[in-house]
Amino acid sequence: MKKVITISRQFGSGGRTIGRSAAEKLGYEFYDKELIEKIAEESGLSREYIEAHGESSPSRNIFAYAFVGRDASGNSVGDYLWRTQRDIIEKIAEKGNCVIVGRCADYILRNRVDCLHVFIHADMDKKKERIVSLYGETDATPEKRLLEKDKTRAMNYKYYTDRTWGMAENYHVSLDSSALGEERCIDLIVGLARIL
Amino acid sequence: MKKVITISRQFGSGGRTIGRSAAEKLGYEFYDKELIEKIAEESGLSREYIEAHGESSPSRNIFAYAFVGRDASGNSVGDYLWRTQRDIIEKIAEKGNCVIVGRCADYILRNRVDCLHVFIHADMDKKKERIVSLYGETDATPEKRLLEKDKTRAMNYKYYTDRTWGMAENYHVSLDSSALGEERCIDLIVGLARIL
Repeated sequence: MKKVITISRQFGSGGRTIGRSAAEKLGYEFYDKELIEKIAEESGLSREYIEAHGESSPSRNIFAYAFVGRDASGNSVGDYLWRTQRDIIEKIAEKGNCVIVGRCADYILRNRVDCLHVFIHADMDKKKERIVSLYGETDATPEKRLLEKDKTRAMNYKYYTDRTWGMAENYHVSLDSSALGEERCIDLIVGLARIL
Repeated sequence: MKKVITISRQFGSGGRTIGRSAAEKLGYEFYDKELIEKIAEESGLSREYIEAHGESSPSRNIFAYAFVGRDASGNSVGDYLWRTQRDIIEKIAEKGNCVIVGRCADYILRNRVDCLHVFIHADMDKKKERIVSLYGETDATPEKRLLEKDKTRAMNYKYYTDRTWGMAENYHVSLDSSALGEERCIDLIVGLARIL
């Protein structure tokens, strides 16, 4: 039985929804927005800041990031947010029986044997449909929004983990939610969590 | 029901064995060495050449590859091998009911809706054990042999497909055979092939 499930996901793939349903079926705690609350509490940073930067700290503007907002030891607010997130994720995992979405949890918890690390992706057309129906239209095309969001996540992940985001080898199982369907992804995750 | 299963795999992950068992359970043809035979027949190239270069053409030495052995139209023997492989893989897929291992089949068949594309990977320690027990010791360390083989596959894949080898998004499902176990991987693939 795996006590911790991490879900990494492409934007628009439905990974968060899949994670929430898997948590419900397993009777596990689900950490997504809840994680932001905890991080806000412990760090003193605003929810808005965490939401905007928790998975994208250094990447939006790597030069601005490199030179501003560092303390005397050279630590940026991004590094501070990273360390706070990491400590909270480690504490949550220690308690067990939880599903954690995003925030490099797969990397942070890579040495724990009681974790199942999952990556959810989907084809571009399905992701486009999904984000437009969930978040509506914006000035940018759906494809541009999708690519930018994932690029940001990939850069953040690379910066803090030195790994390539979305490489199959980082996860125990990676699933195409558009090909398999959300229900089947949920069942596979729940089944693997129970059996492994 | 998926009529074609492609298996891409890290060296030492057991992907080929998993593919063969999945083929047996589904009553499908299995193409690995068999593919080399077919390519040899159609291309006139030797089995040894195909085995050595079929998944690693331009990468061993990109400069040598770029400048030698090209015909009047600038086609190298590597390009010729690629085209022959591609045509044979397309023909095999058209016949259906088959499992194809390696050789960029996931990319070549990316537009067919009757395919299940699978990637098999494993952790380094398990892969080391496996290749030493299967192929014995050599002068190079097991880790070096593993990294070189996969690097070669990755460069070949990049050259011909412009994709990154091992990215989860290229496959419908990616599985860690060391975490899940070979039997479970086989059952998952067979189950998904039947249900999708």
